[in-house]
Order: sequence, then C-alpha cells, then structure tokens
Amino acid sequence: MSDANHPSMDLDDVVHQRVRLGILAVLNEAPKADFGELRSILKLTDGNLSRHLTVLEEAGYVTQDKVFEKKRPKTWVAITKSGRKAFDDEVSALRALLDGISG
Amino acid sequence: MSDANHPSMDLDDVVHQRVRLGILAVLNEAPKADFGELRSILKLTDGNLSRHLTVLEEAGYVTQDKVFEKKRPKTWVAITKSGRKAFDDEVSALRALLDGISG
Repeated sequence: MSDANHPSMDLDDVVHQRVRLGILAVLNEAPKADFGELRSILKLTDGNLSRHLTVLEEAGYVTQDKVFEKKRPKTWVAITKSGRKAFDDEVSALRALLDGISG
Repeated sequence: MSDANHPSMDLDDVVHQRVRLGILAVLNEAPKADFGELRSILKLTDGNLSRHLTVLEEAGYVTQDKVFEKKRPKTWVAITKSGRKAFDDEVSALRALLDGISG
C-alpha cells in the first residue's frame, strides 16, 4: 500500500450516492431530460427522484426548469458545467478504484 | 435507451456507500486487516469506521474478531464469502456503468 490516498477517498458522497450517480450518468449522455423520463429510466418514485434532484441542485450540479408544454407542466432537468466536472471526477476515482482490484 | 435496467439500479447501497466500498476494496486484497490498519489506510475516525463495519457485519459481509495480542486488544476484520460476492457484484455493476459512459 503506497502513501497515496486510497481511491475511495476521492469519491464525492453527493455524486457517488447510487440514485444520484444514476441521474448524472443519464444526464451526462443526454443534453437534458424531463422528470418523467428520468423517473422511468431509473425506476424511481416521484418523491425519491425529487429528493435526490434537490440535493444535486443545491450542490449546483443540475438545474430544474419547470415549463408548460401544451398546457401541461413539465420539468426539464439538465446537468451543469460543474455537475459534469463532478461526474468526470467521480468516474476517474471509480476507474482508479477498479484498476486497483485484482481478480 | 434499451429496456434493460439502468446499471445504477444494480448497485447495492450497503456496498456502494463510499466508506464501505473502501473497506471492502481493502479487504478484497488482504485476507484480513486490523481495525487500526483500516482506519489509517482509509483515514477514518474510530467512530466512523466502527459505524460502517457494523453495517457490513449486520449484512453478513465482514466479521470482526476481537483478540488480545501481547496483552493489547486488537480487532481483526475479514471479508466473508458473501461479502466477496457482494463486492464482486458491485464491481460488475460499476464496470457496466462506466462502460456506458461516453467521452
């Protein structure tokens, strides 16, 4: 074991948490997604998705844009520049962790 | 997006949590580690390490063996067979998630 930090120490709890990692992974591929789409891809309840989006929004990693389309409310969710950076950092830390695993 | 579950849905919160993932990654490489060693590799406080070891022990993923060596108490921590399986599953899910990321 070297003196370098263990790779798990480079993981950010805000991004690493399972549901939030899923949300950011989806948003990393799509420019924006609407709430219903995220809920269905990640098979989450409204409440659960909402709660994790709030955490990500408070960290500045996503934005939520509530609009009306054809008179129906819709929430567009998009990843921010700093969200993309945080996600990239998480991916690098995960790759380092996985690279250290034998077998 | 295919009908398959998003890879984040295959992550197990017990194993995925940052500190616990670190503990299992260390134990996956070493046959057993003592409490002080884990604390120092992962730069955790006694309380934090202890709390997460309890979660892992209750899930059946690690064992803790308190012994006296040269009249000093020592706690040996080891990964169980089912802990190794859970860790392998997490690693597979993480690899699937990372494989799906472009850029």
